[in-house]
Amino acid sequence: MSYRTILESVQNGALSIDDAVAALKQADIEELGFASLDHQRLHRSGFTEVVYCAGKTPEQSAIILERLALRGECNVLGTRADQAVYDLLRTKVDDAEYESLSRTIVIRRGAQKSVGQVLVVAAGTSDLPVAEEAAITAEVMGNHVERIYDVGVAGLHRLLRQVDALRSAQVIVAVAGMEGALVSVVTGLVDKPVIAVPTSVGYGAQLNGVTPLLAMLTSCVPGMAVVNIDNGFGAGYMASMINQMGSPA
Amino acid sequence: MSYRTILESVQNGALSIDDAVAALKQADIEELGFASLDHQRLHRSGFTEVVYCAGKTPEQSAIILERLALRGECNVLGTRADQAVYDLLRTKVDDAEYESLSRTIVIRRGAQKSVGQVLVVAAGTSDLPVAEEAAITAEVMGNHVERIYDVGVAGLHRLLRQVDALRSAQVIVAVAGMEGALVSVVTGLVDKPVIAVPTSVGYGAQLNGVTPLLAMLTSCVPGMAVVNIDNGFGAGYMASMINQMGSPA
Amino acid sequence: MSYRTILESVQNGALSIDDAVAALKQADIEELGFASLDHQRLHRSGFTEVVYCAGKTPEQSAIILERLALRGECNVLGTRADQAVYDLLRTKVDDAEYESLSRTIVIRRGAQKSVGQVLVVAAGTSDLPVAEEAAITAEVMGNHVERIYDVGVAGLHRLLRQVDALRSAQVIVAVAGMEGALVSVVTGLVDKPVIAVPTSVGYGAQLNGVTPLLAMLTSCVPGMAVVNIDNGFGAGYMASMINQMGSPA
Amino acid sequence: MSYRTILESVQNGALSIDDAVAALKQADIEELGFASLDHQRLHRSGFTEVVYCAGKTPEQSAIILERLALRGECNVLGTRADQAVYDLLRTKVDDAEYESLSRTIVIRRGAQKSVGQVLVVAAGTSDLPVAEEAAITAEVMGNHVERIYDVGVAGLHRLLRQVDALRSAQVIVAVAGMEGALVSVVTGLVDKPVIAVPTSVGYGAQLNGVTPLLAMLTSCVPGMAVVNIDNGFGAGYMASMINQMGSPA
Amino acid sequence: MSYRTILESVQNGALSIDDAVAALKQADIEELGFASLDHQRLHRSGFTEVVYCAGKTPEQSAIILERLALRGECNVLGTRADQAVYDLLRTKVDDAEYESLSRTIVIRRGAQKSVGQVLVVAAGTSDLPVAEEAAITAEVMGNHVERIYDVGVAGLHRLLRQVDALRSAQVIVAVAGMEGALVSVVTGLVDKPVIAVPTSVGYGAQLNGVTPLLAMLTSCVPGMAVVNIDNGFGAGYMASMINQMGSPA
Amino acid sequence: MSYRTILESVQNGALSIDDAVAALKQADIEELGFASLDHQRLHRSGFTEVVYCAGKTPEQSAIILERLALRGECNVLGTRADQAVYDLLRTKVDDAEYESLSRTIVIRRGAQKSVGQVLVVAAGTSDLPVAEEAAITAEVMGNHVERIYDVGVAGLHRLLRQVDALRSAQVIVAVAGMEGALVSVVTGLVDKPVIAVPTSVGYGAQLNGVTPLLAMLTSCVPGMAVVNIDNGFGAGYMASMINQMGSPA
Amino acid sequence: MSYRTILESVQNGALSIDDAVAALKQADIEELGFASLDHQRLHRSGFTEVVYCAGKTPEQSAIILERLALRGECNVLGTRADQAVYDLLRTKVDDAEYESLSRTIVIRRGAQKSVGQVLVVAAGTSDLPVAEEAAITAEVMGNHVERIYDVGVAGLHRLLRQVDALRSAQVIVAVAGMEGALVSVVTGLVDKPVIAVPTSVGYGAQLNGVTPLLAMLTSCVPGMAVVNIDNGFGAGYMASMINQMGSPA
Amino acid sequence: MSYRTILESVQNGALSIDDAVAALKQADIEELGFASLDHQRLHRSGFTEVVYCAGKTPEQSAIILERLALRGECNVLGTRADQAVYDLLRTKVDDAEYESLSRTIVIRRGAQKSVGQVLVVAAGTSDLPVAEEAAITAEVMGNHVERIYDVGVAGLHRLLRQVDALRSAQVIVAVAGMEGALVSVVTGLVDKPVIAVPTSVGYGAQLNGVTPLLAMLTSCVPGMAVVNIDNGFGAGYMASMINQMGSPA
Repeated sequence: MSYRTILESVQNGALSIDDAVAALKQADIEELGFASLDHQRLHRSGFTEVVYCAGKTPEQSAIILERLALRGECNVLGTRADQAVYDLLRTKVDDAEYESLSRTIVIRRGAQKSVGQVLVVAAGTSDLPVAEEAAITAEVMGNHVERIYDVGVAGLHRLLRQVDALRSAQVIVAVAGMEGALVSVVTGLVDKPVIAVPTSVGYGAQLNGVTPLLAMLTSCVPGMAVVNIDNGFGAGYMASMINQMGSPA
Repeated sequence: MSYRTILESVQNGALSIDDAVAALKQADIEELGFASLDHQRLHRSGFTEVVYCAGKTPEQSAIILERLALRGECNVLGTRADQAVYDLLRTKVDDAEYESLSRTIVIRRGAQKSVGQVLVVAAGTSDLPVAEEAAITAEVMGNHVERIYDVGVAGLHRLLRQVDALRSAQVIVAVAGMEGALVSVVTGLVDKPVIAVPTSVGYGAQLNGVTPLLAMLTSCVPGMAVVNIDNGFGAGYMASMINQMGSPA
Repeated sequence: MSYRTILESVQNGALSIDDAVAALKQADIEELGFASLDHQRLHRSGFTEVVYCAGKTPEQSAIILERLALRGECNVLGTRADQAVYDLLRTKVDDAEYESLSRTIVIRRGAQKSVGQVLVVAAGTSDLPVAEEAAITAEVMGNHVERIYDVGVAGLHRLLRQVDALRSAQVIVAVAGMEGALVSVVTGLVDKPVIAVPTSVGYGAQLNGVTPLLAMLTSCVPGMAVVNIDNGFGAGYMASMINQMGSPA
Repeated sequence: MSYRTILESVQNGALSIDDAVAALKQADIEELGFASLDHQRLHRSGFTEVVYCAGKTPEQSAIILERLALRGECNVLGTRADQAVYDLLRTKVDDAEYESLSRTIVIRRGAQKSVGQVLVVAAGTSDLPVAEEAAITAEVMGNHVERIYDVGVAGLHRLLRQVDALRSAQVIVAVAGMEGALVSVVTGLVDKPVIAVPTSVGYGAQLNGVTPLLAMLTSCVPGMAVVNIDNGFGAGYMASMINQMGSPA
Repeated sequence: MSYRTILESVQNGALSIDDAVAALKQADIEELGFASLDHQRLHRSGFTEVVYCAGKTPEQSAIILERLALRGECNVLGTRADQAVYDLLRTKVDDAEYESLSRTIVIRRGAQKSVGQVLVVAAGTSDLPVAEEAAITAEVMGNHVERIYDVGVAGLHRLLRQVDALRSAQVIVAVAGMEGALVSVVTGLVDKPVIAVPTSVGYGAQLNGVTPLLAMLTSCVPGMAVVNIDNGFGAGYMASMINQMGSPA
Repeated sequence: MSYRTILESVQNGALSIDDAVAALKQADIEELGFASLDHQRLHRSGFTEVVYCAGKTPEQSAIILERLALRGECNVLGTRADQAVYDLLRTKVDDAEYESLSRTIVIRRGAQKSVGQVLVVAAGTSDLPVAEEAAITAEVMGNHVERIYDVGVAGLHRLLRQVDALRSAQVIVAVAGMEGALVSVVTGLVDKPVIAVPTSVGYGAQLNGVTPLLAMLTSCVPGMAVVNIDNGFGAGYMASMINQMGSPA
Repeated sequence: MSYRTILESVQNGALSIDDAVAALKQADIEELGFASLDHQRLHRSGFTEVVYCAGKTPEQSAIILERLALRGECNVLGTRADQAVYDLLRTKVDDAEYESLSRTIVIRRGAQKSVGQVLVVAAGTSDLPVAEEAAITAEVMGNHVERIYDVGVAGLHRLLRQVDALRSAQVIVAVAGMEGALVSVVTGLVDKPVIAVPTSVGYGAQLNGVTPLLAMLTSCVPGMAVVNIDNGFGAGYMASMINQMGSPA
Repeated sequence: MSYRTILESVQNGALSIDDAVAALKQADIEELGFASLDHQRLHRSGFTEVVYCAGKTPEQSAIILERLALRGECNVLGTRADQAVYDLLRTKVDDAEYESLSRTIVIRRGAQKSVGQVLVVAAGTSDLPVAEEAAITAEVMGNHVERIYDVGVAGLHRLLRQVDALRSAQVIVAVAGMEGALVSVVTGLVDKPVIAVPTSVGYGAQLNGVTPLLAMLTSCVPGMAVVNIDNGFGAGYMASMINQMGSPA
């Protein structure tokens, strides 16, 4: 039972106060043995717990996603999910959606909104899986999302013709591998906050993304902050929190 | 001459169109030989160029600060400045202010505002120079700033009694050295964006701040992004951009 | 022959003093060609040699485990064992037990005890293989073990409701991946020693566990010491040594 | 006022219940502006807050030490203190003691005890500052401490003649720089827990202590856990917690 | 004696063939005890040995510079020289020149030329010492050198207005600290080779220049190669070799 | 349509000025959805965009290669391509060529030239894939290329007998794994620029090529610059730019 | 033809002086296209070129091994060879021998000798592949080799009972993974040179052998030098050179 | 008293057996409080304990050196000693010698010998302090030492003209900073063992000697082993052990 269901049951007399207190406590944390679902998260942080599927068995991931969806108050998101999780989940939640490029699972629940504008900019074709994880995360959290892809600094004119689009966003997620120079250039062109995402695209001295991570952290341009390598989810989440401050529903 | 002065001179006939075009171009970039001042920054990014004094001679820093102040449209900020810069600057700009803890120089110009709420949280007494750099940066950029200091997780109750204060901010700057665990805990308690600043406070395996930097980047809590080690300025600047989105003047 | 068998044979006259001296020396170190079993370990360190199976062929691991079990004085433990080791071993030691999550093999021998209280706390579902390796190690060494899982700091209330349980342990093993902040928070809440185990759960800047390792080493909270990444065995062993000091059988 | 003083004032009627509640809350956390003293620590963790003086001004350190001493319930310890802190402190607390080798300040308060046995072993003469920080920390916290110094593995017989002393300790703090091999050898000889402290003694590939830190973490001998480089304090504190479990006062 | 002097002495009969052979061998390598001057370098590599003064005593540096100047065939260059070297040298070579910003000593000898065009571009004021070392090296080696300074990507328009100047160079030396993004942007705008020089300007995650070094090595733009951190000399030398290929005297 | 086709159509009246402007803009950047082809590159940088196939699906790589080939003005190069890309591409571009050792795809278009001399030197047999990538890149870009392979410094006489060949090149690409000492030795023997390519050949402390990368960057011999580990393409490209300066068509 | 064959042909008049000179030059370096065999190595360094098979195709390795064996003057050794190399080689050299543990191929040629004494000591069972590579290398090069395995410091008495054996060697190869402490202990016990080989056995902070490598380099005991991680071959080769100095045939 | 003195006293009746046993035990380890002198070292390892002065007070170093000299059986060596140690020592041991370049103190005692031949080769003038530490160490230990300095690979002919000298040594110590390529080249030219010493000479990517350390460890030439960065002492000691095997006194 969600908080709302419990409270409505109290209001209409279907639940005594004592039973409601017990139900609320149980509603808060749902023990699955291998996991303690934090249902308070939606009310504390504005979005429900997101399921990082990479370190879990497909069974564990599918059960957690299903349990979260049963609350029905909020979209549910799974990241780093492979097809096996989705196949299991579909047998129980038939409207779950899967995007194989970004490896995300989405279950749409509650009221859908799409406010403000988050812009996801990516340097190259190889960065798209990370960029799409960011874009889908922001969309699922209720933001309007635009995309500009393959505008790395090797051909600067590709980016410069997009300056108006860059300046019309509320918040920008900038995704780049290799040396990540795109992020500094983009941040220098706008007056809105930029969330930088280094990717592991490249080889040798790129060190699986450590190089653009360090480069973004030491950028000569202020107005930017950085998330972990390949962490499209974290960037989309942060962009959503910022965008929704400036975009009251 | 600032853009405004040039345009007013055109309006009242004191400047011909041709002279105004020349003045505008000159106004955009001011060549000092050792530096090219980017006066367009205010109009492009919302705040004038900030002077990083660490890699410059006191003379260079003082001249640049003075030239920026002459524009008169916007507060001027110098970071990582030592007393020698300030002493030189004071002979020319007598209302310049210096804070030795944060090593910042401020020259107040243009309309002063103080909108929204930026909260700066710091883990320990040794983190205060960085925390104050963030706080002063945000204040100078026109934000209302609150501070909560010495609330590291060793005594968690010190932080937990501040939960209401944490939740009332628009954006939080969280500053921590050692292992930086404060940032994860703070982010887990609020529904607003957090800018994390690792500091170089600690020794041995703390690696001059690399450890909390890595820890913050890999936090298990979403809703946070990270700036460079000891980069209070970058955090305050980013917080200002976010806060002002949600806080129209 | 174990020490006990030799000594009993002397007592009942079945073995001369000279033969017994020779037997004792041989009993001390058993040469298998590819390995020198250190049977003195039980008497020197309080527990018999534990078999790290990862770097050995299944045949080598199985033979060593069987030889140790033949001593009969003490439980025998194999770590990082895969199914192939177990299948081989079972043909010779039919009461050997295998846990696939923790990849441990246990052969129960000698008197079984369960003293004091070791508490194993883990941050997330993905940390369970390491946490279970610690728990099983401590159990096999004769300690009473409790578990609290999936209490990472993203949802701090999940941990805070367990404070009484935390404080009732003699020694705590705290297991966490990502940035490992759970360990600092737990240590700040208790007055008993904490053994911290960083795990390789995470990606990018998590650096396969180096990040929480460094974070735990530089924690702002005293009363904790750290073992190698993913080293559940080492933590459980250390916790056992501490717990048994405070818990005389 | 300490908890005890407050409670005695209630008992003898000098303080009303309401005033006592307010006093207790204030007693818990003492706000100094630049620091929030965590007086609850003694009751939560068994020892009062220890003052890390390295990142503080001498004035800040001296004030904090003085305030902690005023509670009068427990010995007070300052680490990484230089002579300037001590000189300031002595003007206010005339029985404060300073050891320049370990850079520790001690103020003895409350009942003095000396239970169990902590043994501090150090590899070389250059490791003594760290070893002494560990020894003094453990002594101040109420433990009986023994020392064995300059027994590095280059001359193994120096260590082997101390085996009986090693085995008579409750817990061992092993301090070593260079490659830190002493720690593995000591741990292999005993059946009690060992706290390993790598030091920054050495040059080149010793990497300011990173090398023995890594070596100790990957030791082939179980029964050991590791603290930060040069962290004698952390090792002494941890040893105290372990020793006091096995040594009821 | 230089090769030329020896050969002229043979031509005019002042030196026998046997004496000339001995002189040539001695001319090739000049033994100073603490150094073996490689006078063959001019004829093998096109420029005489350059004196890296950082690791030598002022006396050693001054003697080597003087000996090289005595050959008289080629300009002589000392790098990383402090005032003490220059003061000593001036007592013997009164036309030696010293630039304190770049810490270079120049002694002009042989025919002076200035061919082609090397362009040195630098991102910020703090990068000038390195940029000037590159510029002076190239000038001393006989190249025409232009400079464009303080055109970092934070204000991209400062660089874009210089595109014609960038495209008119034969070879570009691009100098940048922080994250070094300037180099990728410059290389993307031109069709001539770029020598990239990372500088140690920055702090924290900039890792004393390792970050822009890695970034430049992994740039998404081809047509660039990289020299060591702060190695203005190496870049100027390489640029000279390239420029002189396309610019026959 | 290529620029040439458009301009010829204008010249012969087949295209109006307005249509030509639109065509030119479209010709500049070709949007494929997953990629924005930068057709301006040929005119800006002297060679068309090179396709890095490693991070793309075979379909994406094949389409991009085909589209570039349709321009018909310039050879087309794909790097890090596997057989699947080639098989797909062959169905559309039947004269595409594939070299499995270097994993390069070449489509020959436009006028073929072969100027100057690029020499590729490699230390060992295992370095050949990287060396061949460099050689083919330079050939495709219109340079005459020579190769000297397996001349590592373990048998220095193998290299020394090639000194005349080394000295006859315009520019040298030196490829080496292990410790990369070949590069320093080669650079010391010639008076032409050397592009150094570290390879990941080796194990342990070779750190997948980081060791020769660092070694080459800190070489005691000037006249060399370095590209990323295993980056044969980048070295061949840079060598081409240098060689063509000194070798006018 | 080997040097010997050529010279004998001259002696018996079968070869003219001119033909012999040409043959000698060809004999020196044998060009295989993909490799330049350095046949001078035997006469310059005392042993023929050893074939590192890891980076070569099985065909390349087999051909090189066969060509070296044809010289007939010296044993031939291939390292890091898999079964495929051996299977190919056997079709041409039927007395080639393969050891799968150490992955070495040996072809015995020339006079066989076995002088002095090289002792190979290894810490654990998992280190045997590296230890055997060292032992076989030394044997093939003509040294008498002894082995002592599984004597890690966890059970120090296993090593101490071998002190006489340790002291009877001319040179010791000490092989250890984990933290590598065995090497320091062994070196402290003997008066002969020790060659230390770190292995990649271990996990987490062992960093694939970097940790024991660093530890051995910073050992507190002189009389030891270190080779690359897992480099049994290099250690055996070095030990042979030392052993044969003290053991004239 | 030395072993010899004690035994002679027994022989001539000046000492009873019981007193002699006590004296022998005391002779073995001399406790100074801050140090345990290992007098057994001379008899176990062939040379007395060498005093590393860097981590000790001048007083401690001077006392230890004096005590070792009192034994009178063997030369005494102090390394990393500054003038203060020497000034103190001279007041007690007036024939002590100090070399400021290598920072070594030597006290000559016992029979002086000079056997075999150790050759110390150094790449540049800046490497001389390390090279001299190696040379003096070997000399003090009784070896004949030759030196060849400033023969880095930038001018390869300087080294090649010394090939005969290289080949006449019994063992070579090769010292190099920057990228350390000298070591590979030297090892490829000789058939005797080479001890490689990387130095911290260089900047930026040289990483204070880590780069040549890694390069030497991964050299493509066998017959070499490596000691710690700047560790001239360790190299000289190792070279002595090797040289004396092949050079019976």
